[in-house]
Formats: sequence, structure tokens, C-alpha cells
Amino acid sequence: MPTASENRIEARLSRAARTLASRPGMRDFAPAADNVISLTIGMPAPDLFPSAQLAALTQEVLAREADQALQYGQLLGVPGLRAYLAARLNEQEGLQLGPDQFIITAGSSQAIAMLGQMFVDPDDTVLVEGPSFIGALRTFRMLGARIVEVALDDSGLVVDDLAPLLDKLDADGVRPTFLYTMPTFQNPTGVTLPAERRASLIALARERDLLIVEDDAYGDLRYDGQTLPSLLSLDRDGLVVRLGTFSKIMAAGVRLGWAVGPPELIAGLASMKVDAGTSPFASHLAAAFGRSGQLDRHIQILRAGYHRRRDAMLQALKEHCAPYATWTYPEGGFFIWVRLKPHVSPERMHEAAAREGVTYVPGNVCFASGEGQECLRLAFSFAPEDQMPEAIARLGRAMASASPSC
Amino acid sequence: MPTASENRIEARLSRAARTLASRPGMRDFAPAADNVISLTIGMPAPDLFPSAQLAALTQEVLAREADQALQYGQLLGVPGLRAYLAARLNEQEGLQLGPDQFIITAGSSQAIAMLGQMFVDPDDTVLVEGPSFIGALRTFRMLGARIVEVALDDSGLVVDDLAPLLDKLDADGVRPTFLYTMPTFQNPTGVTLPAERRASLIALARERDLLIVEDDAYGDLRYDGQTLPSLLSLDRDGLVVRLGTFSKIMAAGVRLGWAVGPPELIAGLASMKVDAGTSPFASHLAAAFGRSGQLDRHIQILRAGYHRRRDAMLQALKEHCAPYATWTYPEGGFFIWVRLKPHVSPERMHEAAAREGVTYVPGNVCFASGEGQECLRLAFSFAPEDQMPEAIARLGRAMASASPSC
Repeated sequence: MPTASENRIEARLSRAARTLASRPGMRDFAPAADNVISLTIGMPAPDLFPSAQLAALTQEVLAREADQALQYGQLLGVPGLRAYLAARLNEQEGLQLGPDQFIITAGSSQAIAMLGQMFVDPDDTVLVEGPSFIGALRTFRMLGARIVEVALDDSGLVVDDLAPLLDKLDADGVRPTFLYTMPTFQNPTGVTLPAERRASLIALARERDLLIVEDDAYGDLRYDGQTLPSLLSLDRDGLVVRLGTFSKIMAAGVRLGWAVGPPELIAGLASMKVDAGTSPFASHLAAAFGRSGQLDRHIQILRAGYHRRRDAMLQALKEHCAPYATWTYPEGGFFIWVRLKPHVSPERMHEAAAREGVTYVPGNVCFASGEGQECLRLAFSFAPEDQMPEAIARLGRAMASASPSC
Repeated sequence: MPTASENRIEARLSRAARTLASRPGMRDFAPAADNVISLTIGMPAPDLFPSAQLAALTQEVLAREADQALQYGQLLGVPGLRAYLAARLNEQEGLQLGPDQFIITAGSSQAIAMLGQMFVDPDDTVLVEGPSFIGALRTFRMLGARIVEVALDDSGLVVDDLAPLLDKLDADGVRPTFLYTMPTFQNPTGVTLPAERRASLIALARERDLLIVEDDAYGDLRYDGQTLPSLLSLDRDGLVVRLGTFSKIMAAGVRLGWAVGPPELIAGLASMKVDAGTSPFASHLAAAFGRSGQLDRHIQILRAGYHRRRDAMLQALKEHCAPYATWTYPEGGFFIWVRLKPHVSPERMHEAAAREGVTYVPGNVCFASGEGQECLRLAFSFAPEDQMPEAIARLGRAMASASPSC
């Protein structure tokens, strides 16, 4: 029975809190039980943390810049970090972005939330890929948004579906607030939008005056294939805001990300900041990590490490799961998306996987519509490489036990 | 003329963003010009930062706990830090709080914002002291709250005014979401609620089922007088959530604060977290600072340092401003609240202060109603002690030049 205090709180919840309480949300980052292998959360690999470098750089930062690093900072974020990020992106993509086109956030999660707060009123429509990032879906729901999915295939967002969808919405008097998309190493599928689709998407955005949130959490972690231009780099009309994060390339525990886009949009985001600016301490550390060249060297190490993990998972899938499922081939990022063949019962498979001791994200959690029951998201980022064969063998046994021949 | 991109963004802003754009907000933490002495922002004193200790502790944390400190953490925050905070508060106030009654936030600013998101729908009524903390007012406005002020005198919130106010609201069918109050070393006035008023407030809250947000940003920084029980410690009905922060006692740059209260309320706050949990890196560092005993020793150093700054400001006020103003006597915290005498023109005084080269917060910014034009908030925390006489001499000259005898 609920206590008096529980009743009191329940009775007073805001609309946002009620919405959230009634929906499945992002699970907490709780550690898995000892004998369970978790492929659930896209956590970076602890064995690849640059601990010693960050310890040494913290000494330097606190010896040299404590007055700024330990003090309140600007709502936009530490200028030195924004200048570093601007210089890096300008060099990577031949752009001419200024530091004031960047805002530092508590991971890209906070950037997604602030974009939502800036643009989304209850019942506004937000376009997302189906499937999409669970955390973004949760944030948009919290704001009371109507979430409309655009299909995604092995080449990412089906851009050709977008124009008819916009027509249909327009006929109903609906103008979407923005499209939230992950064109590179998408979460949860791992797929990447090819160059032609990128160009088409930007042309369509221009034609329809569609704002695009390009979430690029994994772009630096490419293991093979060609680097593609970001949507931001293709945009000439101030229609794209791009999100980045230090979570995957430095440390998730520092909670640092950024948004880059049109200066007036970024200034608007700064005015939505309610935490007095993202950690100057962590930001000075990240700027030092970047400027010293250590970040780019560390990314090479990460690419090699995650490349091996991805290949180990792909190899094990081929060995253990081919009769029961198909899966995507991610050229980078953290995830493989698995689709059970029609003869495998998803319900029985999920139950069997729990018994076998392997966890993952059930696909339906990644769809606003709740479809995708026959899919699973596997993270190859966190489990040690040498556990990958066993993890996928367990998965294969679960699939087998959920097939009619069993 | 606004650009196309500015127009596009303007047209799409959410209600919250529009509300914010139309109101004066918290100013950014920009440094003052070289020849200006800033008494504006309640920034901690850089000469009191524990830089060397934090550098050494970061080494230890990264050598010992990097797997947790650099990884994603729990939405409630790092368990070790919550356990430390619970043990500390239980010892200070003879309580029996558990670690799950604490949530770690990005400063107490984020805790205020999350409480707002959890409980406030547009047009809901929030009670605040008049005057109150600018950042809280800004956050409540952003959520579309109606802000109703309860008077404050030299002994803090006028609790006797609260019952008739609640009656009046009740007659209009309005049930306030919560009362936001700073009973100890209030921002902006520096005043403290005496024990009797605390007891009356808790009795009234119980009688009226009123939720109280007790913001205790400065409680550890007492320079004289007796420590008083927190509202949280007096509450037996799960009606109080108390906010604390490491910004003033360790470093503002780490952006760490917390909320403590009824477990179900704290669990609700965790579900409102959109940043995947507050920095494990900073939290492990704070826990190490606390557990090693260094935090409590450092607080003694801070008390001595800010005590001297406060006394220097009070002494200078007596010397330079007595003919023109009265002011509060803060037993702790960062602020003195000055009220100009009726013969001093606030407008002329503000202009003269700008010419003299001293800045502060004009009182009206601290009132939701916009009153308080004749008041100023002075922060004695940031300016060096030896600049205090000059800062206040400038203030006195500005007051003199705004008086009729001039």
C-alpha cells in the first residue's frame, strides 16, 4: 500500500513526471549479476580508459588554471574547450565555425534535453528514426511530444519516406519541431547514412525548412569504411545542430558533451541552462587532453580496441546465431542490431536468454511505437573481448531453444 | 534586422523558451572589467580553493577507482558519495537518513530545476521569499509557474504571514506546489530563520500539508552565532526536501550538489534526470575529499577566511555608508543586503556606482514582483579582503552623490 508520503507526492506530480512514471524508461546503469554477461548498455570499455593521462593532466590543470577550473563558468561553457572543439571540427570538415557556435553540456543527453526544452511544447511533433536512441525517446516523452517515426533500413534513415510523411503531417496541420537523427553508427542499429542520402536529406530540409538534430555520439569511432561528411557540414541554411560527446572518446564519467550549430540557436540553448554551466573542472581537463594531442592519439587506441570487439562479436554471431537471425554490420560505434527470423519466438528467446545469463536491449524499447519485438540491440563496447564468444554462444542457445525444432 | 535563421528559431521556440527570452535572467558569470570591483556574483574566493588537495586526491581516485569514476553511473549518483553525505548529516543532526534519500545533482541549481520539473505545471503556484535567489526565480519562471512572495524580515521568512496567505490562496482554489525557502544565511539577504520560526513553519506545513524545499547552500559557512536545526531535521512527515552543494565548500567548478528528503521523492527526482547521472568523476573526488577528513578541515579554513571578508565589508559599510543606508548582519554565507534610506535615489545611485567602478545585484532582480529598487545585494565572498574598503568606499561615494545634499 502506498504511504501517505507516496500519495502526497503522487498527487502533486507535474504532467511531465506523470508521463514519465507511466512509461518504460531508460534503465539505470546497474551492474549485472556476477555470472551474467551484459551486452545491454553502451558503456565504454574500462580497460580503454585513459586513467593515467587524465591523472597527470589534472595535476597540470590544477597547478595552472585552478582559478578558472574550480570556479563557476560561463553558461556556454569554458571558452578554451569551445575554441579547441571549433578548431578540431573546422580542421576535420573544412568548416569555419566559431567558439560561440558551441555549447558544452553534461553529456549529449543534456543537449538533447535542452533542445527539447527550447523547442518542444506538449503535443508538438518530433520526428525520430524507428528505432531510435532510448534516452532521446524518454526525453521527448517527458516533454509531452508526439513522436513520429521515420523508417530506417540498412542504410539508415529512409530519406525517400520523409517527403510524403511531411506532406501527410502538413495536410493534418502538423509542422514537426525537428528531426532527431543519428546518421553515423546509429544507436541502436549501428547503420550509417550514405553520402547520397545525406545530400538528399539536407536538400529536403532546406526545401521544407526542417530543423535537424544530428546526434553524432560515435563518429570518431570508425573501424572501417570511408568517413562521410556530417549533416552539419552540408548545411548552408542554419538548419542543423550537431551533438557530440566526450563519453565515448575520453570518459563517460566526466559527463561532457557539446552542441554545435547556428550561433543564435546555441545562444538560446545557453539561456535554457539551469545548472550554472557545465563543469569547468571537467572542461579544463578535456581541453588539456585535446590540445596536448592525447585525445587524437587515444582515439586511435580506442578504434583498434573496439574494432577487435566488434569483429569478435560478428564472428561469434556467424558461428552461433546464423540459423536464427540476421544482423547489421556496423562500420563503427558500439552496437549491432539483431533481427530474429520469423521461426524464432521473441518471447521465448528473451526468457531463454535470461536463463542463459546474457542481457541486451529488447528491440521494442527502441521504438516509440513499441514495435520491434523481434529485434535486439547488442552492445559490443563493454564486455571484454574474450567474453564475446561465450556471450554470443549463450545468445545462440537461447535462440535455438526458442525455435520450433527444439 | 533579424536573420532568416533567427526568425526560424524565434518562430519555433517553446513556451518555456519564450517566457525566458522575455524576462531578465541570471546574468552570465563574465569577469568584471579590470578597474571594476565586482560584488555581484556569489562566487567563492579563488584564494581559498583546495587545489593541491584536489590534485592529490584525483591521483588516488584514478589509481584506485577509475573503472567507476570514468564510467557512467547511477541516476541517483555515486553510492559512496551518497553514503558519505548521509553519514555526515546523520552525525550533524542526529538523523537516520539512508543513502537512497540522497540524489547527486549538478549543483543545487539542477536540483531546483528538477524539483520544478517534477512538480510544477504551467500556471501552478510556487511560494518564495521576497526577495529570493535569482536562479530559482528564473527556473520557476521557465516552467511557467506563478510566483507568490512571502515577506521576509531581519529574521527570515515571516512565518506568521504564511497561514493567512495560504487561506487567501485556498479561497481562490489555489494549492501551492511548494514553498522554496533558504532559512539559513538567505540569498540575497544573509538573514537566518530563528529556531522558533523554524518550529512554527514545520507545524504549519504539517497542518496544511505544504511541501517545503529547503535550500541550504551556505549552512556550513557560519562565522558566529549558534547552529540551528535544519527544517529537514524538524520534519516528521516527509514534507521537506533539503538541497546542499559542494560549490561553496569544495569548488563551484566541479558542479556538485545534492537533494535529500523522502525516499519516494528522491526516486522521483532520479527519474527526472536527463543527463545520465551527475559526474561520477567529480563525485568520487568529493567522496574522497569528505571521507579523508579534508572537507571538514577545509570548512574551518573557509569559515575563517569568509569571516574576515564579512567583517571587512561590515566595517567599511559602517565607515562609508551609514548616512545613506541600513544593512543586514549575516551570521554566515556570502551576502549582505543593503537598503537605501528614502533620501537616496536608487536610480542615481546605480548610475553613480557604475561610474565609481563597483558592481552588485540591484535588489529588484531578486523579487518576482520587481520591487526592491531601493535594495542591493553585496557579495563579500569573491573580492579580495584588501579590496573591501575600496569597494565600499566607492559604494559610499555613489550613495552620497545620489543624496539630495549633493
